[in-house]
Amino acid sequence: MKIKVAVLGYGNLGKGIEKEIINFPDMELVRIFTRETEEELENYINKLDVLFLCVGSATDLPKAINRWGKLFNTVDSYDNHKNMEAHLSMVKKIAETHKKTIITATGWDPGLFSIMRVLFESVLPKAKAYTFWGKGISQGHSQAIRNIEGVVDAVQYTIPKRQAVVEVKRGLQKQFSKFETHKRVCYVVVDVGDPKEQIEKEIKQIPNYFEGSDVEVNFITQKELDKKHKKLSQKGLVFIKNKNVGSAEFKLDLKSNPRFTASVMLAYARACHKMHEQKQFGVYTVFDIPIGLLVKKPSVDKL
Amino acid sequence: MKIKVAVLGYGNLGKGIEKEIINFPDMELVRIFTRETEEELENYINKLDVLFLCVGSATDLPKAINRWGKLFNTVDSYDNHKNMEAHLSMVKKIAETHKKTIITATGWDPGLFSIMRVLFESVLPKAKAYTFWGKGISQGHSQAIRNIEGVVDAVQYTIPKRQAVVEVKRGLQKQFSKFETHKRVCYVVVDVGDPKEQIEKEIKQIPNYFEGSDVEVNFITQKELDKKHKKLSQKGLVFIKNKNVGSAEFKLDLKSNPRFTASVMLAYARACHKMHEQKQFGVYTVFDIPIGLLVKKPSVDKL
Repeated sequence: MKIKVAVLGYGNLGKGIEKEIINFPDMELVRIFTRETEEELENYINKLDVLFLCVGSATDLPKAINRWGKLFNTVDSYDNHKNMEAHLSMVKKIAETHKKTIITATGWDPGLFSIMRVLFESVLPKAKAYTFWGKGISQGHSQAIRNIEGVVDAVQYTIPKRQAVVEVKRGLQKQFSKFETHKRVCYVVVDVGDPKEQIEKEIKQIPNYFEGSDVEVNFITQKELDKKHKKLSQKGLVFIKNKNVGSAEFKLDLKSNPRFTASVMLAYARACHKMHEQKQFGVYTVFDIPIGLLVKKPSVDKL
Repeated sequence: MKIKVAVLGYGNLGKGIEKEIINFPDMELVRIFTRETEEELENYINKLDVLFLCVGSATDLPKAINRWGKLFNTVDSYDNHKNMEAHLSMVKKIAETHKKTIITATGWDPGLFSIMRVLFESVLPKAKAYTFWGKGISQGHSQAIRNIEGVVDAVQYTIPKRQAVVEVKRGLQKQFSKFETHKRVCYVVVDVGDPKEQIEKEIKQIPNYFEGSDVEVNFITQKELDKKHKKLSQKGLVFIKNKNVGSAEFKLDLKSNPRFTASVMLAYARACHKMHEQKQFGVYTVFDIPIGLLVKKPSVDKL
């Protein structure tokens, strides 16, 4: 019996699951639901093992979990770090009340990078694990710019600063500021006649996202943006060093950020299904799930 | 209440636990038992939460588990890949019969590297995860040489071959031979008058360890060996690449192999204790244990 899955949301991530599921032969994609066909999910109760929630993290995802988490086991890639605690307790209540298994905040960060931070600091205590993102486009930061009035389109590259990486690799246990670790380079398309200086100022003041960061804003045309800045690649690094014992490093170099995130979600869907069969109801993150549940059956050969 | 632990075996690994436990303030080292005082462990029944088995993997460890696994929860770094399956079923029986929690084969390989192999192949299926060891001394291979008659002392460096690493990083999904992936450089001290040619031939024919490998044998004096080749550093790499989606990489650069292995065992002792409190009896490997159990309490901040 294959694991029956469906997807809600047909953006880059939903498309990623559609593409990557071929590499998960123990799963069957029953259907993809868009915003327009979402209502029809009602007809699939008891017909799905796992529902992938591939809608926007900021507002759509909480709504989707609130509605569909009562009816289906779900896997998502919620990534709003700031709101994580409230999110988890909201989802916990839903999952426990309705006896569902919900795996939230998978993907690579949160997700694999979270695993590495906790693993690294547990086996090399006294040292701190540092995370660097990029060079690559941050969807969240790009969206934050697009939300500004007068902005037609925007892309934001996160770029780790060489100096900070070098210091971390040397084993410095330093408290870096946002400004020291990453540079944020923005490409922005504005309506004709809109005041660029004003928009640049607004971008640099967006709290959480840009305030206090090293931000460069470039105004370009939509044509140039579409041509040069719609790549899906992304990179990242988690690094730890204890000078007496040693260092550990985890690096990702992604050609397609959404396809990789989709793959991670597919692997965690296996865990979701198995855990639900074991009556493990509730909300789970990558911290709670043994790696062995991500494969059909872990092989002793891999030990 | 601190987690009460003890150590059996006072070689490099046992000493590593003695050194590193200071970084695990939730644990208390009750006592270290050597071969001479091993008997006295009988007096510690119900007085320990976890016993670290730091005796030799090849023959002493199975004996120690057979005896002490019936009386204590244990954590070890068993590393005999070839015999893993039989080992696990032997230990499973002991742990289940005596309601103990036994975590076996922790450390970095098996251990963290095993986690990465399974994790990488689950999130980037279709690709194969490759492991490279070194440059560093392999204790198992060094011991295999020392077992030859006429050998007084020996050290074996495992060195990854650049060409293989380059090919793997390029994304070649190739079936490498042992000869292609690593070079094995041996420094050997022999008794005066022993036939060096004969010993070199014997080394190169040791099954599993050296047969089929690219082996270089150097004969040196004990003085030179002690001076130049008793370092505890080690390195290693797990790498995977799926050309369409991306690559993932995990790298260790250890100043002290035994101190790092000890740290990993200490982190897994937390899991061992928590799992036993939850009445999770049986044998567990790194595949079965959520990363969140390695810390006192996983923090939402790390997600």
